[in-house]
Amino acid sequence: MADTVIVFELKDRDGLARIGTIETKRGKVTTPNLAPVLHPIAQEITAREMKDRFGVEIVMTNSYTIWRSDSRQRALEQGLHRLIDFDGPVMTDSGAFQSHVYGGADVTNQEIVAFQRGIGSDFGAVLDIFSEPEHNRHRVEADMGETLARAREAAALRGEMNLIGAVQGGLFADLREKCARELSHIDVAIHAIGGVVPLMESYRFRDLVKVIIAAKRGLGPERPVHLFGAGHPMIFALAVLLGCDLFDSSSYDKYARAGRMMFADGTRHLEEMESLPCDCPACSNHSVEDFRQDVKLLARHNLFASFSELKTVRNAIKTGELWELVERRCRSHPTLLDALRELRRHADFLQEFEPASRPSAFLYVGPESIHRPGLQRLRKLLQTRYSPPSKGTLVIFPEGPKPYARRREWEIEAISHRCGAQMIVKSALGPVPIELDELYPFSQSIVPEDLDIETLEASDVFTQQYVRAHGYAQGFTWSGPDTLGELPKAGDGGKPDWDMMRVRAVADVQFGRGSADALLGGKIEFVKSPNTDRIRNVIRDGKHILSMRAHDGMFSLKVDGGRLLHRAFTPPVLRVVVETETAEFNRQGKNVFAKFVLDCDSELRPGDECLVVDQKDELAAVGRLFMTRGEMLAFERGVAVDVREGVPPPP
Amino acid sequence: MADTVIVFELKDRDGLARIGTIETKRGKVTTPNLAPVLHPIAQEITAREMKDRFGVEIVMTNSYTIWRSDSRQRALEQGLHRLIDFDGPVMTDSGAFQSHVYGGADVTNQEIVAFQRGIGSDFGAVLDIFSEPEHNRHRVEADMGETLARAREAAALRGEMNLIGAVQGGLFADLREKCARELSHIDVAIHAIGGVVPLMESYRFRDLVKVIIAAKRGLGPERPVHLFGAGHPMIFALAVLLGCDLFDSSSYDKYARAGRMMFADGTRHLEEMESLPCDCPACSNHSVEDFRQDVKLLARHNLFASFSELKTVRNAIKTGELWELVERRCRSHPTLLDALRELRRHADFLQEFEPASRPSAFLYVGPESIHRPGLQRLRKLLQTRYSPPSKGTLVIFPEGPKPYARRREWEIEAISHRCGAQMIVKSALGPVPIELDELYPFSQSIVPEDLDIETLEASDVFTQQYVRAHGYAQGFTWSGPDTLGELPKAGDGGKPDWDMMRVRAVADVQFGRGSADALLGGKIEFVKSPNTDRIRNVIRDGKHILSMRAHDGMFSLKVDGGRLLHRAFTPPVLRVVVETETAEFNRQGKNVFAKFVLDCDSELRPGDECLVVDQKDELAAVGRLFMTRGEMLAFERGVAVDVREGVPPPP
Repeated sequence: MADTVIVFELKDRDGLARIGTIETKRGKVTTPNLAPVLHPIAQEITAREMKDRFGVEIVMTNSYTIWRSDSRQRALEQGLHRLIDFDGPVMTDSGAFQSHVYGGADVTNQEIVAFQRGIGSDFGAVLDIFSEPEHNRHRVEADMGETLARAREAAALRGEMNLIGAVQGGLFADLREKCARELSHIDVAIHAIGGVVPLMESYRFRDLVKVIIAAKRGLGPERPVHLFGAGHPMIFALAVLLGCDLFDSSSYDKYARAGRMMFADGTRHLEEMESLPCDCPACSNHSVEDFRQDVKLLARHNLFASFSELKTVRNAIKTGELWELVERRCRSHPTLLDALRELRRHADFLQEFEPASRPSAFLYVGPESIHRPGLQRLRKLLQTRYSPPSKGTLVIFPEGPKPYARRREWEIEAISHRCGAQMIVKSALGPVPIELDELYPFSQSIVPEDLDIETLEASDVFTQQYVRAHGYAQGFTWSGPDTLGELPKAGDGGKPDWDMMRVRAVADVQFGRGSADALLGGKIEFVKSPNTDRIRNVIRDGKHILSMRAHDGMFSLKVDGGRLLHRAFTPPVLRVVVETETAEFNRQGKNVFAKFVLDCDSELRPGDECLVVDQKDELAAVGRLFMTRGEMLAFERGVAVDVREGVPPPP
Repeated sequence: MADTVIVFELKDRDGLARIGTIETKRGKVTTPNLAPVLHPIAQEITAREMKDRFGVEIVMTNSYTIWRSDSRQRALEQGLHRLIDFDGPVMTDSGAFQSHVYGGADVTNQEIVAFQRGIGSDFGAVLDIFSEPEHNRHRVEADMGETLARAREAAALRGEMNLIGAVQGGLFADLREKCARELSHIDVAIHAIGGVVPLMESYRFRDLVKVIIAAKRGLGPERPVHLFGAGHPMIFALAVLLGCDLFDSSSYDKYARAGRMMFADGTRHLEEMESLPCDCPACSNHSVEDFRQDVKLLARHNLFASFSELKTVRNAIKTGELWELVERRCRSHPTLLDALRELRRHADFLQEFEPASRPSAFLYVGPESIHRPGLQRLRKLLQTRYSPPSKGTLVIFPEGPKPYARRREWEIEAISHRCGAQMIVKSALGPVPIELDELYPFSQSIVPEDLDIETLEASDVFTQQYVRAHGYAQGFTWSGPDTLGELPKAGDGGKPDWDMMRVRAVADVQFGRGSADALLGGKIEFVKSPNTDRIRNVIRDGKHILSMRAHDGMFSLKVDGGRLLHRAFTPPVLRVVVETETAEFNRQGKNVFAKFVLDCDSELRPGDECLVVDQKDELAAVGRLFMTRGEMLAFERGVAVDVREGVPPPP
């Protein structure tokens, strides 16, 4: 595929959500971002004010409106940027939305693409066919074919202009995914998910979620994803969580004209307010009465609320709290709650992007929280990677919210002494083997004491799944000292080595089954924190192979640990493969850039520890993944692996 | 009890939450409100800025700090207001909180009350004894006795100064209630719930809820309730919902010094932020770096966030959306969710203040929503007041979120034709008799399609309770046309008069069992809306007796309807009894003021229709309750009943 003139780079991320930069010849755009729609001629808030006061980095305007107006010639002569008085990057729409509203646009794709190019649009849109939610499959499929054909036609005409190509497909998930997949092979700079305005207008947020996820399944990861016509801050957090990078909307203005104030938790009518419950610069020192008389004030508030929410979303990506934010925002309206409850059905896809841990604690928000894809994955790993110390007898502690096994010290000792049973704590998050009680998010979680029934039932189910997966001979639920008497006598009376059990368990869950055996042979010593008595470093035969991170209870890999894993597992396990020439830089401790990555273990997730190897599978470095496999293979720019330590070249 | 020099008046309300005004000789204070704590000498944000920039109406300062400082004499000479440079009303604390922090204060109650009076405090605090959450019952009870004794002592010393008396009682609900009840008989102007700071500091919000409710059960309604030391906006909505009117706190400043930003949904550390996700005047045009260097900026943000949340809360009271707001805010932290889940256990008390309908739709926020006390009361009324048209056969429509029976028209006709069964819709909110499907909140509710298990199970339980309460002979769950064949053939084939059934059902639920018989004898005609075909007016023998409100499906009572109810029910049912002399004003259509009310039917709730009668039980007017019985008997000021129509005096 041909090069576009923009560069999109990933700066930070949380799951599918990403903070990125789009570099254009007219300046940088940080994503997620909103391109406010400017009327090309009659601007309620001027382009200059947008830039100076709101820090707007990119705007959207409608090329079709210009094309139809008497400014057409002037736009071609002066150029778009002078016409609208904005010197940053400008996206233009093509008239496709007008065809949704008015049932047709009297312009061809060729004409409008050429016109956008002619007036110097930075991002010109293809004239796609807008599929309405009520269109049948036959019609949607045909229109989707036409949309793609027009995107190809536009790609041949675009010249230096970047294209915005639309994903259509109506409500048919397979068509959306197919359209997205085909669009990824066409030379467009921005992937836009189209045809969603009717869903948002009628609060069909569950359908919106299905549409976005279907599109994301098909789209390549290396281009910004735009959600056409989305401009209400109440959906920003959710849409960003699902991987949308850009929004555009004239809603700030349309809502203002209807006397409606936008907030991150919904819309309020001016009529129902006596005072403005907002301190944004538009609201400060103004009254409801002022707002009723000056629509511009309200439009400004709506823009402030939109950009404020984008800042909140970006902060949440950085602190790892985006899921919590989304779950809270989705309590603003029952239809958003439906959208939230839809997410658990797409965990297969969402978990591919989920980090094993986050910088912030796991806060329970509602019965949806325990179905977050990261937790779903962790529960799976506990079934597939972790090997319990005993398969004979299982003791289940029916503990409440926090699975701090350490609080149960005497019980654990007694059980262990009697029969060496495997012990797990049944928590809201799922069953927690007691050796893993410091693993994220188990000990970094806050859960209410009084759980709702859905969560309690789910906790039962998770525990049953665990028990089945490991095939225990006997199971007991701990209900106090009496339970001890019921347990079979099978222990040797020895005190188990809890430190070793913990380290083995974490190693297998984090790096894969067999890692504990590979890493923990030889003479093992633990360096512990003098304050907390927690394991900090693992030393094997005098060499520091692993560090245990305090904030998530997982390991950071040292080179000597990496060597052991490298020897134990055959490719592609735990590997990121780079071009042999560039591996030399990684050996010096420099990061791995995406453009030099040839392959990557598909089981690795952002945040995971990995082995950087060259084309001959020689270990060059150990580090931590920043990108998914798909991303590092697709992106031309940016860091794929943060290298912790390089491995000196073999002599 | 002696008169205090302030007047507290109720302006608006939603359940226990109230918007009021406190009139003092130094100006009006609108409640709910926050009195920021000002250091008497070293003010981070000056009193002047508080007033001019933040619109602060009342401040709190610590008289004990002044008393111990070298400003003591100056305060006595200049007066408190000049000392701190604030000319509005000032509350002073007594040193009781210092005794919590430092374990004692070297001043007596007499000394500090006299000192507060001497420096001209508007609201001086009694030196109460701060009970810690861990204190045992014996100690708490003794300290509570001392706290009350000191309040009595202070009352004798107060002179012209208003007193703040504290409700203590630790975590013992019965002691809190007892203390509150006794305090209500002491001459204090403000009731303050004390000893709660340790609960808030350790996120024990469930205990905080229990403490506030216990206090509110004992307190008279006519004085403002202050929550001592509460200043985090994350608890404002919840505390106001439970009837707290005033807050004070130095948190805005303390949090600022610790680099913590307050938001209505929690606290964020400056460290974890790259940009300020806030547009308040303190944050606008400033960076995180500025905030790190200037603690005053952060303190300002914290104050803006606090007052902004108060405005949000006040708007929610006005629009009837406070429950929704609280349920959303309580999703900010799992411990707040626990507090929210506690509320359903106090429905017996909370429902006493609940209006039958609200101006806004019922939005489902989570499994807690269906336990709101108003819904609990409505479900009870459907069991006790409503008489189903048939007791023989019951058909249950297992409908989803919205119980719009009208969508099932053909089924209803067929069932009715076959056996005249009672039909109900099983909804998340509870069982809805089909004649009542336009009653608030049934048709004014928005509920997700995909409900959580707790809600579904509760819906089952509510339906079972209904079935048991009405003792049906046979019950059927509708599962399509097959069900029709299973129903006993008992109908007369006639078409039921749905309009009449609806009107009868609403009358009984709204005014009490027997109201339908009383109101709907004679020749009844309905005036319907030409657009919606809904009943608007009910005419009996040519007289307009009732109007049906479009927004909640309930009746407004006309004088002729009032006469019928007055005749049918003996006192005190539906009555508000006023002094005979003042009844003349009500006969002219003027509102009923609380000070003239002698008694009121305790079953009436704010928003209910009522009969205004004089001391001889002569009907003087019909109107709508604004206050509860307790309030109209206690308040000296304000409207108790909005009179709709006066009844001319008997000739």
